Amino acid sequence: EIARAAAALLRKVKGPVGPLAGRKVLITAGPTHEPIDPVRYIANRSSGKQGYAIAAAAAAAGAEVTLVSGPVSLADPDGVTVVRVESAREMLTAVEAALPADVAIMAAAVADWRMAEDAAQKIKKDGSGKPPTLQFAENPDILATLGHHAALRPRLLVGFAAETQNVLDNAASKLTRKNADWIVANDVSPATGIMGGDRNTVHLVSRDGVEDWPDLAKGEVATRLVERIAFALGARDA
Amino acid sequence: EIARAAAALLRKVKGPVGPLAGRKVLITAGPTHEPIDPVRYIANRSSGKQGYAIAAAAAAAGAEVTLVSGPVSLADPDGVTVVRVESAREMLTAVEAALPADVAIMAAAVADWRMAEDAAQKIKKDGSGKPPTLQFAENPDILATLGHHAALRPRLLVGFAAETQNVLDNAASKLTRKNADWIVANDVSPATGIMGGDRNTVHLVSRDGVEDWPDLAKGEVATRLVERIAFALGARDA
Repeated sequence: EIARAAAALLRKVKGPVGPLAGRKVLITAGPTHEPIDPVRYIANRSSGKQGYAIAAAAAAAGAEVTLVSGPVSLADPDGVTVVRVESAREMLTAVEAALPADVAIMAAAVADWRMAEDAAQKIKKDGSGKPPTLQFAENPDILATLGHHAALRPRLLVGFAAETQNVLDNAASKLTRKNADWIVANDVSPATGIMGGDRNTVHLVSRDGVEDWPDLAKGEVATRLVERIAFALGARDA
Repeated sequence: EIARAAAALLRKVKGPVGPLAGRKVLITAGPTHEPIDPVRYIANRSSGKQGYAIAAAAAAAGAEVTLVSGPVSLADPDGVTVVRVESAREMLTAVEAALPADVAIMAAAVADWRMAEDAAQKIKKDGSGKPPTLQFAENPDILATLGHHAALRPRLLVGFAAETQNVLDNAASKLTRKNADWIVANDVSPATGIMGGDRNTVHLVSRDGVEDWPDLAKGEVATRLVERIAFALGARDA
């Protein structure tokens, strides 16, 4: 109790303490929703739990954290600036507005596609029995945009790859194509219970190879990742 | 306090009391989610609040209530049997399993369309820059299925029509096509704040005409509707 009060006092006097003190960390979390018409949208099963846990762990490690979050039913983590968005395009705008950052961790499950045009009015059955044809357009790739950013690429850029097959191949290819430093890859097949659940089994993919982490609580994955980030930044500073 | 204890004791001894005592009421609520692949789905903005409020009001009026609910983040109402489903097809199956019912109130925002085939694996960008083509199929029409049910059509069948334009025309046409007794129609344009909100402005459309209700809390809409149902059933019995 006294120790905690002393630590809080110290933070007030000296600013944040901890292995990420003085670092700006940008995190995305949750799904995006892509509107079809005023009442319908395309979504995905991301709960945001892993990204929120990383934001909380980074803040606890002393970082100045901005969390850009899609629609989730989670409370804002303590000491984190939360920007809430709905679509992939809104998320990209919020991410770019939050630059520069020392570290960016793109944990959101961003929709690859949106409607080419979302309808101003609710789409009705036309009586023909034929469903409407929806035209899709590719969404901006937020991870690749940061990875190839000429002036403001974060020093350490971490992407996520949620796959249901060829997990490691897809992650390695994503690392290269998007110019990320690390990809946190996991298998989100429904049988794993990872999407929406409280545990996660991830692989940390970098240019040095693949590290398999054991099955962990999402909070433990977050703590480990933040420790690794602090270590990597320290090594780059040295 | 004494009065409430006495009423609870009375219910235990004599069974449910209230204007809907002895009636079986079937209610649907919430959105449906239609899977695209293991991680993506099509959803709509229904929160389920109006349907849940009707279920609670019907149970409070003494009815035996089954609530078939799409994915929502609401607690089960007291004294109601809740069956949770995801897609329109699952909802239809659960509704048919709950028949016979004296009254059915179809408040769910059921998706008109689903994927013709939902993919077993996550759909990936194929590198062509071209989005995938999704083939849709029409979902079963739950309200029309009940309205035209040869043996088990509920004595009083109430549908909902959530529209963003031509609200009353669409509701009147729905009443006829689906052989419902009443349609509760409302304008769910985003500016109204009705979808997801706590208030509702509805029109009760029947073969006798249209009744405009004032702006009310969703709980008040529920209570009024249940009173009207009890009155209509009593009139039909007489």
